[in-house]
Amino acid sequence: MGSVTYDLVVRGGRLADSGDVRDIAVRDGVIDDLLPARSGAVGREEIDASGRYVLPGLIDSHVHFRTPGLTQKEEWAFASRAAVAGGITTVIDMPNTKPATFTPADARDKDAAVRGTSLVDYRFHAGVDPDQVDRLLDFSPAEATSAKAFLTGHHTAPHVLRDPARLDRLFQIAKEKRLRLLFHAEDDDVFALLDQWQGSPPEYRDYERFRPRTGGIVAVAKLIALVRRHGTAIHVLHVSSREEADLLTAAGAAGLPVTWEVTGHHLSFTTDDTRRYGSRIRLSPAIREQADQDRLWEAVINGEVSTVGSDHAPHPFGDKVQPPPDAPPGLPGVQELLPGLFTGLRRRLPTASDTSLLRIVTRLLASEPARLFGLDHRKGRIAPGLDADLVLFDPAVNWSLTDVQAKCGWSAYAGWLFTGRVERTVRRGETVYAGDGTFGSPRGEWLTPALVRGGA
Amino acid sequence: MGSVTYDLVVRGGRLADSGDVRDIAVRDGVIDDLLPARSGAVGREEIDASGRYVLPGLIDSHVHFRTPGLTQKEEWAFASRAAVAGGITTVIDMPNTKPATFTPADARDKDAAVRGTSLVDYRFHAGVDPDQVDRLLDFSPAEATSAKAFLTGHHTAPHVLRDPARLDRLFQIAKEKRLRLLFHAEDDDVFALLDQWQGSPPEYRDYERFRPRTGGIVAVAKLIALVRRHGTAIHVLHVSSREEADLLTAAGAAGLPVTWEVTGHHLSFTTDDTRRYGSRIRLSPAIREQADQDRLWEAVINGEVSTVGSDHAPHPFGDKVQPPPDAPPGLPGVQELLPGLFTGLRRRLPTASDTSLLRIVTRLLASEPARLFGLDHRKGRIAPGLDADLVLFDPAVNWSLTDVQAKCGWSAYAGWLFTGRVERTVRRGETVYAGDGTFGSPRGEWLTPALVRGGA
Repeated sequence: MGSVTYDLVVRGGRLADSGDVRDIAVRDGVIDDLLPARSGAVGREEIDASGRYVLPGLIDSHVHFRTPGLTQKEEWAFASRAAVAGGITTVIDMPNTKPATFTPADARDKDAAVRGTSLVDYRFHAGVDPDQVDRLLDFSPAEATSAKAFLTGHHTAPHVLRDPARLDRLFQIAKEKRLRLLFHAEDDDVFALLDQWQGSPPEYRDYERFRPRTGGIVAVAKLIALVRRHGTAIHVLHVSSREEADLLTAAGAAGLPVTWEVTGHHLSFTTDDTRRYGSRIRLSPAIREQADQDRLWEAVINGEVSTVGSDHAPHPFGDKVQPPPDAPPGLPGVQELLPGLFTGLRRRLPTASDTSLLRIVTRLLASEPARLFGLDHRKGRIAPGLDADLVLFDPAVNWSLTDVQAKCGWSAYAGWLFTGRVERTVRRGETVYAGDGTFGSPRGEWLTPALVRGGA
Repeated sequence: MGSVTYDLVVRGGRLADSGDVRDIAVRDGVIDDLLPARSGAVGREEIDASGRYVLPGLIDSHVHFRTPGLTQKEEWAFASRAAVAGGITTVIDMPNTKPATFTPADARDKDAAVRGTSLVDYRFHAGVDPDQVDRLLDFSPAEATSAKAFLTGHHTAPHVLRDPARLDRLFQIAKEKRLRLLFHAEDDDVFALLDQWQGSPPEYRDYERFRPRTGGIVAVAKLIALVRRHGTAIHVLHVSSREEADLLTAAGAAGLPVTWEVTGHHLSFTTDDTRRYGSRIRLSPAIREQADQDRLWEAVINGEVSTVGSDHAPHPFGDKVQPPPDAPPGLPGVQELLPGLFTGLRRRLPTASDTSLLRIVTRLLASEPARLFGLDHRKGRIAPGLDADLVLFDPAVNWSLTDVQAKCGWSAYAGWLFTGRVERTVRRGETVYAGDGTFGSPRGEWLTPALVRGGA
């Protein structure tokens, strides 16, 4: 064993998924072996992880890194620094850029714009063009295995699929092409009707009433009916209400291919917070009441939720403090995702072991997103043969966020006391975040899904 | 004037709708004239109403008097005593009897069973046969100008319209025949899905979660879409949540022919009450939270609601105290409707004048139901030419209900301190409730709607 020299050995960390203490031996950016602690394995680089947890590099399957076209809001270089500072080594970017990712060429152009600037590996969700749903037929799995449709819109989501016949067609296409459909699931007819009656919200704390749970509930019920009809797999994004949570869990329990996401923001803020944070935490879907958040946490803890996404969607501060109708929804979150999730779990389950909490975290931020989006041949677990994406995590440290990496330069989580901090992030064997303000090389790559290789 | 002798003169009461003090002169059961107070008009019978309000005889457009076939739960003789004791002189009975009121013959049979036992005048809502929606085509306006469909069912509502194509057909038929469609608007697919996941509620206070607002929201959104398509007039019954209230008000504001009802029960109880009342207040749709009830009261006060119905739906006490899955929803309420509504208004608007509160009451319990259901040529206002249905009401007296008239013999409002009491009820010139435990003659009749006479 002494004769083998690895590129990297991460020594003596406790693996978050198994709870075992191991030396992780890495070669060519891939985990070569998991060795017993104190294995004596030699690496050209060695990292001492003793007393720390090692998490698989996390996957944020819901980011808006704003390239191309919206780079006044965010740039990939900034956003990917925020990601690795938060333990995330893979992101899947949303299609509502300018132009939107409606075609394979759009995806390739996005890759060309991103390549060389990204610390993290990445994939793109294709966008559903509401006027030409059939454009999805052009995508090969290498370009996209998932497509996102907006059933209602907002400032940075102008492409809304309103026509029921086209929505039905979308389900057909996605079923044939084995595309997973992602939805911003709020019913636009409902909101149009309410807007016609109510007008615009006069204050931020009235916002929830103007974008009530009604929209989500109606849309989710429609989507479940469509899944029943077509058998298409769907993933409902940023679920905000207890009613939607119940419906979606029931759909999954009924054997329908329905999964869902909660965002860190919806787990962190409630309508009560609008009094102090104002427009900063304006979201689409709106944040809701404490009882809703409690239900979302329950779903996180019970495993009803499949992924937790950041919905990292920054805007310059000046944009956010406009009058309600003009202030766009969305806030940065990729850096805060892991600490926010772990802190929330710790506060809600004060006597649970770190290992049990991190098992929840790694399922939601690693193994499940990897599985759903065809990346589990390379990502999502710490296992030989998989990419050496690793996060050193200290679950005991209490800290507050000061080194905001997002281009917008602000965080709605300023002043929060987080529990659990990322100390180092390794992407394919290379340290991309060293915990001391230094970052690695922007050699993140456009990933190829397992589907292409015959898997998933 | 001294030469005229009326059948009845009600002297010196303050008319609830106008606020004026008048002598009401009645001949042949019809209001002949409204005379200035101290008119000196002579009647064979005279009633002193000085210091009292006179309300138009109230219309409860949502009762389940259980004839035919469910007379172990209620009988028309009992129920109509409860009605007049509560100031109600006209009821519109729901079709979910045994047999259901699916045909004109069913309606005629119901009339035959009721006639001679009813203190109140009455109409019937036709029932929608989910297997043969077209049976509605057989109804003439004399038999029914409204039809009720259940979009979900329960113990005493077995006939559920589940098929979307038939629901669409129902809207066509109703539009052609100018039938107003009434809906129990909760989505059965939603409940079936949730039931498959959750099973039955273990306790009554868990009931709301098993029949959540989701069902109503999804159904109401579907109905609004159907109204948009067909232009059919609908009246949504027993709205329970703030979200439905917003949607329905928005639909009305958009010019759609959509009206809605709140029940006295939903205005009186919340989920918190299940801890003390248990299954007694089990309802379908379920009672909801305080915030929902607050929104319903707001809608009552602002005039967004068109009718308040009792949903008088008694069960023997023994039926109600079975385990949750077996305990049928519904409770008596026709006797408690007016006192409950007036008391709620008084408590919420402590400084408002009696007249202003009674204007709200008479709109919701008289003029609006009369208009919606084609009875305004005879009922709903105190005006010459209309039936002399009159209620003497003392808005100041505080009292508790002890003389429960419903056959089941119990009231969920036992122990409540009501403000405002019915002292006498007159139906077509005859005192049918004297306030002293005596009742009039059961000569209530099946009303003919205005539509037949070319009106409405």
